[in-house]
Amino acid sequence: MNSAPAIQKLLDELERLPGVGPKSAQRMAYWILNTDRATALRLAQSIIEVKDTVHFCSRCFNYAEGDVCEICASTKRDGGIICVVSEPRDIPPIERTGVFGGVYHVLGGALSPLEGIGPDDLHVAELMARLGSEGVREVVLATNPNVEGETTASYLARLIKPLGVKVTRLASGLPVGGDLEFADEVTLGRALEARREL
Amino acid sequence: MNSAPAIQKLLDELERLPGVGPKSAQRMAYWILNTDRATALRLAQSIIEVKDTVHFCSRCFNYAEGDVCEICASTKRDGGIICVVSEPRDIPPIERTGVFGGVYHVLGGALSPLEGIGPDDLHVAELMARLGSEGVREVVLATNPNVEGETTASYLARLIKPLGVKVTRLASGLPVGGDLEFADEVTLGRALEARREL
Repeated sequence: MNSAPAIQKLLDELERLPGVGPKSAQRMAYWILNTDRATALRLAQSIIEVKDTVHFCSRCFNYAEGDVCEICASTKRDGGIICVVSEPRDIPPIERTGVFGGVYHVLGGALSPLEGIGPDDLHVAELMARLGSEGVREVVLATNPNVEGETTASYLARLIKPLGVKVTRLASGLPVGGDLEFADEVTLGRALEARREL
Repeated sequence: MNSAPAIQKLLDELERLPGVGPKSAQRMAYWILNTDRATALRLAQSIIEVKDTVHFCSRCFNYAEGDVCEICASTKRDGGIICVVSEPRDIPPIERTGVFGGVYHVLGGALSPLEGIGPDDLHVAELMARLGSEGVREVVLATNPNVEGETTASYLARLIKPLGVKVTRLASGLPVGGDLEFADEVTLGRALEARREL
C-alpha cells in the first residue's frame, strides 16, 4: 500500500498474526478501512479486553477470566479424571467430542531435550500436587502423538503409576473417515498393533 | 474454544475479517493470548489509529492522512495524467509496477445498473471538475476488466473525449508468464485482436 503511514503500521501489525501474509493483511486492512468505525473499534477492544481479563486458571492452567477456568468451576465435571494436555488450545477439540466429562491439566508445553525444555519448565509439580490432594482416579495423557508428546506421556506415566492412579493414553490408529491407502506407515502400524476383536 | 467469554468475543470479531474462518480465528486468538501484552496492544492501537486518522483525499479520494494523499501531495508526480480506478486498493498494484508517474482518481466503485449504482454514486463529477481545472492531457481508465469496469470505462470515455483529452484504457491480453493453454477464450480473443507487429 502506498500513502498513509497509519495504514502501513496496521499492515505490519496484521502480518504478525499467524497465517497472515502481505496479501491477506492488505485484504484485512482494506476491510478495516471500509467498515464502520464501531465494528473496527469492537475488534480493537476485544483484543485489549482479552489481554486485560484472560489469565491462567490457578488450578489447571487453562485460560480463565476468574481465579479458576469455567471447567474447573463447573459442578458438573468429574474431578476424579484429569486429562493432561500440552496447551490450552488442545482443550476445545476434546470438549467438542462430548465424550470427556472430567477436568484438565495444561502442562504449558511438552518435554523437549533438544530445546532444553525439562519437567521444571512444565506444570508437572502442580499436576503431582493435584493427584495428592484431589482424589484423582485416572489421568488421561492427551499430549500430541509426536516425539515430544510421546516423551512427555512416557515420563508422566512413569511418575504417576507408582501412586496407584490409573494412567491412560489417547488411542492411536486410523482417523475415522480416513483412507487406508493414504495412511502413513506409523499410524497404520499402530492401528494394526492395537487391533480389536469384534 | 470453551471458557472465557472475552475469548469468545475476540473469536467473533476476528471471524468478521475477510478470509478468516473459525480455524484461523482460533489460531489468531491463541496467538494474541500467547503474545506479550505490548504486541497485542500495538495491533489494537493500529486498528484504532487507522480509523481515527485515515480518511479520503479531498482531491483524488484515495486514502489519506492529511487533506490530500501522499501521491497528490508529491511534487514528483505528473498531474497531467490521471489514472482512474474503482477503489483505493487498486492503486498499490499500479504503484508497484513503477511504470506510472501520474496521479490518480478513485471513483469509489463502478457503474452497475443491476445494483442501482449510477454515475451520481461515483466520484465522476469530481473527476470532470479536475479535467476542467488541472490541465490534464491524458486519462488512463484502469477500472477492472469485468462487466462493471468495462461499462464504467466506456461511459467515462464518452464523457471525456469531447473535452479533447486523450483517453486510454489498460491493455487486455495474456498475463505475462501465463500459459496459453489455460487462458480463457475472452482473454485469448482480446490478445489476438490486439496483436502487435514485431
